[in-house]
Amino acid sequence: MPNWLLPENIADVLPSEARKIEELRRLLLDNFRLYGYELVMPPMLEYLESLLTGAGQDMSLRIFKLVDQLSGRTMGIRADMTTQVARIDAHLLNRTSVTRLCYAGSVLHTRPSGLHATREPLQIGAEIYGHKGLEADAEIQELALASLSLAGMTEVRLDLCHVGVLRAIVENDAKAQKRENELFTLLESKDVPGLRVLTQDFDVSTREALLVLPSLYGDASTIARAREVLPNLPGIANALDELELLSSQAGKASVTIDLADLRGYHYHSGVMFAAYVPGLPNAVARGGRYDHVGEAFGRARPATGFSMDLRELARLLPIAERKRAIRAPWGTEPALRQKIAELRKAGEVVIQALPGHENDQDEFDCDRAVVFENGNWTLTKLG
Amino acid sequence: MPNWLLPENIADVLPSEARKIEELRRLLLDNFRLYGYELVMPPMLEYLESLLTGAGQDMSLRIFKLVDQLSGRTMGIRADMTTQVARIDAHLLNRTSVTRLCYAGSVLHTRPSGLHATREPLQIGAEIYGHKGLEADAEIQELALASLSLAGMTEVRLDLCHVGVLRAIVENDAKAQKRENELFTLLESKDVPGLRVLTQDFDVSTREALLVLPSLYGDASTIARAREVLPNLPGIANALDELELLSSQAGKASVTIDLADLRGYHYHSGVMFAAYVPGLPNAVARGGRYDHVGEAFGRARPATGFSMDLRELARLLPIAERKRAIRAPWGTEPALRQKIAELRKAGEVVIQALPGHENDQDEFDCDRAVVFENGNWTLTKLG
Repeated sequence: MPNWLLPENIADVLPSEARKIEELRRLLLDNFRLYGYELVMPPMLEYLESLLTGAGQDMSLRIFKLVDQLSGRTMGIRADMTTQVARIDAHLLNRTSVTRLCYAGSVLHTRPSGLHATREPLQIGAEIYGHKGLEADAEIQELALASLSLAGMTEVRLDLCHVGVLRAIVENDAKAQKRENELFTLLESKDVPGLRVLTQDFDVSTREALLVLPSLYGDASTIARAREVLPNLPGIANALDELELLSSQAGKASVTIDLADLRGYHYHSGVMFAAYVPGLPNAVARGGRYDHVGEAFGRARPATGFSMDLRELARLLPIAERKRAIRAPWGTEPALRQKIAELRKAGEVVIQALPGHENDQDEFDCDRAVVFENGNWTLTKLG
Repeated sequence: MPNWLLPENIADVLPSEARKIEELRRLLLDNFRLYGYELVMPPMLEYLESLLTGAGQDMSLRIFKLVDQLSGRTMGIRADMTTQVARIDAHLLNRTSVTRLCYAGSVLHTRPSGLHATREPLQIGAEIYGHKGLEADAEIQELALASLSLAGMTEVRLDLCHVGVLRAIVENDAKAQKRENELFTLLESKDVPGLRVLTQDFDVSTREALLVLPSLYGDASTIARAREVLPNLPGIANALDELELLSSQAGKASVTIDLADLRGYHYHSGVMFAAYVPGLPNAVARGGRYDHVGEAFGRARPATGFSMDLRELARLLPIAERKRAIRAPWGTEPALRQKIAELRKAGEVVIQALPGHENDQDEFDCDRAVVFENGNWTLTKLG
């Protein structure tokens, strides 16, 4: 096999694409900062236990494992940065106040999440720690939508769901509690016949609620429908109130409610959202509340946040225009070097043609040149 | 062991440090672009053979190895990005013209290069492909020095050496050729008594040249001394000419010549340089010519470049000033939200205090606040 071949679902990013990613990265990080989010950079590798702490059960299968030659212990390459940032909040910063953190970096997956998915997403995201109220979720949702807007996405669909609905139904029925995992699997695949069989000996109200859940899907009016058909439990009422408030603050995004959407059920603790844009089947941004994440690091803190894959998002952007540049001859003459330095200082790309390569073409579109005329180095237009 | 503990020589980067690194990263990449360098992003992992292609022999020990679950083949986490970028030039871009590329990203090392060295340097660098002449080396040297200047380094020492000197001496003597590896080891440790023993049966001129090499160390005048004491071989004369030209173009940096500096001897093919600054024992930037690197990827192209560790460099920068920010109350009132949006659009950091957290402190220094006065949301100074 030729040694320039890359592993499956792993790719180089060439100049035009790299430029788009870099520009988007800066735009988003700068916007996070305007909201008061502080940048942190967790490491690419950690002890495996740390990476698995507070993460979903499927995380272990996604993490590449390595032996640390210094300690003999098993380390993992991060497959997600969320728990790393929670660790930093819980242990390193150790603030009692609200902490807003953001991050951007590569993560690696042992297997792609889909046929064409990369195994090296460039994850970017933001988190708020220390505030239990829905205001933090609202800010995170606003920031996610603002990020998509900065990326030029005009048509966004925002899917909202809430783990509190199923949790409240299950907690209210001892029989349901024992079968929570089976329930979860059936609801995930919206398998209503299977649900009918499983819930036969549950309380009637529990059974009816579980059977109606898969149909509670649609626009914001779904919330009102849910209030009518679901049992009057405090947990459900609270979840529906939260969904109502967030759906009213979605700006131009069209909102979809799906009360049986359970992706992330095991590690989330409140509202969850996913944002979709035309042209991509998978969500471009995912977020939600996961209050327990800091516990395992010795400090339980309310937490909510979101993340996106910069590579995926940048692919949707139009190809950047070729940058206009200035060609200059090679030479060490002080007057020429000074002219070039001045142009660069003014923000111009100046490419010194190396001897023998005066007519090379590349990414840059040289529309001007530095030439020697009447005893001076001056700028001239190229035809 | 607590699960927030990180492996040795692996660290989180907290906000104040992360901000410095991010700012320096942008400064340097933007400057590369002003010289016409195009950004590329090679992947974190590749098949092991690709990563070892054209790299020094010690690279295999530095690379973390993984089994690819999709192909069963051995992959490695990059420990250096130079050969990756050469692969992109040789195979992917496939241009015949001069190509200037730059990059920035994490690399991982199985073991630290020193007691306090990180195992996760943030490598940033630039490369020129397709030009054999010294002009390319001069541009790379200029760019390396300009990068250090942008990083605020005012006192820079530039060490220059050249693999051509030892190569020319060895190629001229069949006996020396057979003992090249031993010679290399002795010269690397400047072991003159050992050299005396090893060179006993070499030609007299070879022997004298090898024994004098470790003393050819000092300022730029070392070049003239070398011309006198080294044999009159074309390879040596050429190497000394190149060193002379580069040392004359070092700007404000103080130049040191070391003809027995052999770090990188096995994969470099011409001039090599290393830049040092006060406060750091190791070189902050290293570069040089390695023309053969593309061969193994099917396309031999002249190549020269340099790289640095952004983390190391950023550590030398003064601590960034606390950013001044504006505090705003929580609220969804349109007039308040509009005021906040306007301030952020003007580049101000505006932090909305979440209910119950009005007096929190963090990285930002809130010296102003948005308050409601006389029916309007206005900005006021904080005492």
